[in-house]
Amino acid sequence: MIPERQSVSESVATRLSVYLRCLTLLESEEVRHVSSETLAQRFDLNSAQIRKDLAIFGEFGVRGVGYEVDTLKRHLLGLLGLDRTRRVAIVGAGHLGTALADYGGFHSGEFEIAALFDVDPGKIGTRTRTGVRVYDVSELPGVVESQGIEIGVITVPGEAAAEVAERCFGAGLKAILNFAPVRLNVPPGVRLKNVDLKINLETLSFYIAK
Amino acid sequence: MIPERQSVSESVATRLSVYLRCLTLLESEEVRHVSSETLAQRFDLNSAQIRKDLAIFGEFGVRGVGYEVDTLKRHLLGLLGLDRTRRVAIVGAGHLGTALADYGGFHSGEFEIAALFDVDPGKIGTRTRTGVRVYDVSELPGVVESQGIEIGVITVPGEAAAEVAERCFGAGLKAILNFAPVRLNVPPGVRLKNVDLKINLETLSFYIAK
Repeated sequence: MIPERQSVSESVATRLSVYLRCLTLLESEEVRHVSSETLAQRFDLNSAQIRKDLAIFGEFGVRGVGYEVDTLKRHLLGLLGLDRTRRVAIVGAGHLGTALADYGGFHSGEFEIAALFDVDPGKIGTRTRTGVRVYDVSELPGVVESQGIEIGVITVPGEAAAEVAERCFGAGLKAILNFAPVRLNVPPGVRLKNVDLKINLETLSFYIAK
Repeated sequence: MIPERQSVSESVATRLSVYLRCLTLLESEEVRHVSSETLAQRFDLNSAQIRKDLAIFGEFGVRGVGYEVDTLKRHLLGLLGLDRTRRVAIVGAGHLGTALADYGGFHSGEFEIAALFDVDPGKIGTRTRTGVRVYDVSELPGVVESQGIEIGVITVPGEAAAEVAERCFGAGLKAILNFAPVRLNVPPGVRLKNVDLKINLETLSFYIAK
């Protein structure tokens, strides 16, 4: 019944995360039931799109009642694979990689930054402030295997990103988050997401525009 | 006709940025006209929501023809205030602040990282790799004024974020991007956006979940 995940668009997957946040907030307010209309109104989403997105994965709502907040939240956690900890490797122990390794928002149970990788002998063997160890990038396949790492994060400069991506694919990583401002080619079966930090500045710019 | 910007939700503002990206891509493919249906289908958005979002700001489409790609793109650039360069200050010259100051994606004409601020005497007076200068945080009001800075980015640790936010408000900044994983109170007339980096990992997690 659930479609092949690779055929689901990134827009849908991202919206599932957004719905999860909304439900978590409603749960903290002790709201038990919510309709797609109320959800849409409260968080400025589209009710038809909420129903359509959720219908891809099954029948979660009850006619006239809406969604049970805790049940739907649990379903979304399962759909997003957040019902267990996923281990993450960051390749590129520069400022961005080190910042992400120590980033509070990433250390929340669902994800664990297991290792950093770099080519700089001065960094290899050191640890970040929160204790994440920096390995030689040549050790990537072994560490991914032994530590059960599933997600790779690319934080190297643009000119090194393509080679690093190849190393990640070679190590068997099937999900890559790319912070380098370049487009990367991926083999079939691998999911790559480019992080767009500028969209945050653009959203803010809207409010100060005249 | 255009509503008070502060009354427009962050979801709408963010979607305007998304539409702008879609139109930029279509323009590069030399597509001249696009309907809300085609836009929705191509980028997995919702056509009714696209029409509703744009209708807030005016009548951009032509019945039976859809939107003119370059006209709508120009309108969105204006709405988002991206028709001129906005100057940005980053407070917190640690790994994240330094990474953002040098981040290629931020240096693209619409935004200019004008200054970094910190309290560490060892950092004050230095410059990042791309030449952004680090000032003493006490100089924030003066530098904001003299350099025409409009947006503040908070990249200090969580425990220092509230005080830094106060300094930003005091310096007259009306738009704040907060990377610290804490909720901040803002006075009326100031827009604050919390950056959620985890949503990127969650989206990826969906594709490797079983």
